[in-house]
Amino acid sequence: MLSKSQIKYIQSLGHKKFRDETGLFIAEGPKIVNELLTEIPQLVKTVYGIKEWLDESRSLLGKSEFIEINETELERISQLSTPNKVLAVLHKMNYDKIVSANNITLVLDTIQDPGNLGTIIRSADWFGVKQIVCSHNSADMYSSKVIQATMGSIARVKIIYTDLEEWLEQQKVTIFAAALEGKDIRKMNRLTEGIIVIGNESKGIHPDVMQLAVEKITIPKPGRAESLNAAVATAIILSHIV
Amino acid sequence: MLSKSQIKYIQSLGHKKFRDETGLFIAEGPKIVNELLTEIPQLVKTVYGIKEWLDESRSLLGKSEFIEINETELERISQLSTPNKVLAVLHKMNYDKIVSANNITLVLDTIQDPGNLGTIIRSADWFGVKQIVCSHNSADMYSSKVIQATMGSIARVKIIYTDLEEWLEQQKVTIFAAALEGKDIRKMNRLTEGIIVIGNESKGIHPDVMQLAVEKITIPKPGRAESLNAAVATAIILSHIV
Repeated sequence: MLSKSQIKYIQSLGHKKFRDETGLFIAEGPKIVNELLTEIPQLVKTVYGIKEWLDESRSLLGKSEFIEINETELERISQLSTPNKVLAVLHKMNYDKIVSANNITLVLDTIQDPGNLGTIIRSADWFGVKQIVCSHNSADMYSSKVIQATMGSIARVKIIYTDLEEWLEQQKVTIFAAALEGKDIRKMNRLTEGIIVIGNESKGIHPDVMQLAVEKITIPKPGRAESLNAAVATAIILSHIV
Repeated sequence: MLSKSQIKYIQSLGHKKFRDETGLFIAEGPKIVNELLTEIPQLVKTVYGIKEWLDESRSLLGKSEFIEINETELERISQLSTPNKVLAVLHKMNYDKIVSANNITLVLDTIQDPGNLGTIIRSADWFGVKQIVCSHNSADMYSSKVIQATMGSIARVKIIYTDLEEWLEQQKVTIFAAALEGKDIRKMNRLTEGIIVIGNESKGIHPDVMQLAVEKITIPKPGRAESLNAAVATAIILSHIV
């Protein structure tokens, strides 16, 4: 049985302000919670699960704190339109702020849709890209929609928010920028190191960031759509050149 | 000024039942409405726009019926969380039901997320794929979320709902099926004709459909994510083999 104040506290983690204040975030559903319990058990604060899920997840839970709740309580604390058996409260990752691009780094300039950011993190994890550098005004990696869209990959990709211009100026590897016109990604050699910059869903890459790129790269368009979804474009680029 | 019954009628088009009954659907926002007014003006029934948008879109509107509304009215009829200047009510496309796969056809087996379906339609349009065949239990192509995610490509890609097994059995071109294990798409020659089957977000392709495929194809995974988003996977496959 959850108290009113517990419910309020978990609900408040739906807001960035409270996530920043507490250093906590939420993940939901068996698929994602299972992955996080496996990959980053040390960051799991409390798991709130219905009996059915808890019973089948005892070994996975290990030493993590858990609380049994009923479906009604789950509905009240869930951020999902269809709550799904379990919700975990976790401590944010504690990455060091210094990232150097010694292999492949994905740089996101103002990706604003949380679903897109989460999907990009998932694709990066699929293609073995281990770090993503986001502009400060990108979607919050700890928002519920981002976490759900990563399908657990949030635990395996290092994500940093920083001033992109400042950071890019310090890097010594080649900077590629995704653009509507540029070098055909199908004709490029696969990269072993480098930085790939992806821009905002409607405005693309900011000119100040774009001028730091050494080469513009593009996805050839045999058809007629004006543009591709940002998460789709990112994944296509990774699939061709990483 | 819209009457209560007009508002109710437009709102009702948010439900599949009423879209099916009336043969109408909704598209919103300048970007998408502009594309539809350009590509399929004959299907536009009524455009509801705020003064600012109507003033700058007179030539685009041509002979289409339009009604000036205010921001409050737009908020009431909009399906978007952030209404955006204009909403159009359109007649559904009237495709003949007979589709033959003489070039490239994308087949979707139970894609359930409307955002994924819309994004797939947009990617198909980018890569020049002109027809998509969906199983009956796929998301409705006329739902607001699908239309918005297509960014206008809905007007350029022919989409049919049918019994997949029955349809696939009649086709004479090669059927490829996206799977977690199969032929590496990076090692395939580009196709000039053929069918590419994509499966459900969590369950993949139904076994009865899978057994009709001649070849399984896959996106190599150098990293660790268990799977890719369905719309992302579809676009990567198209970018490599179409």
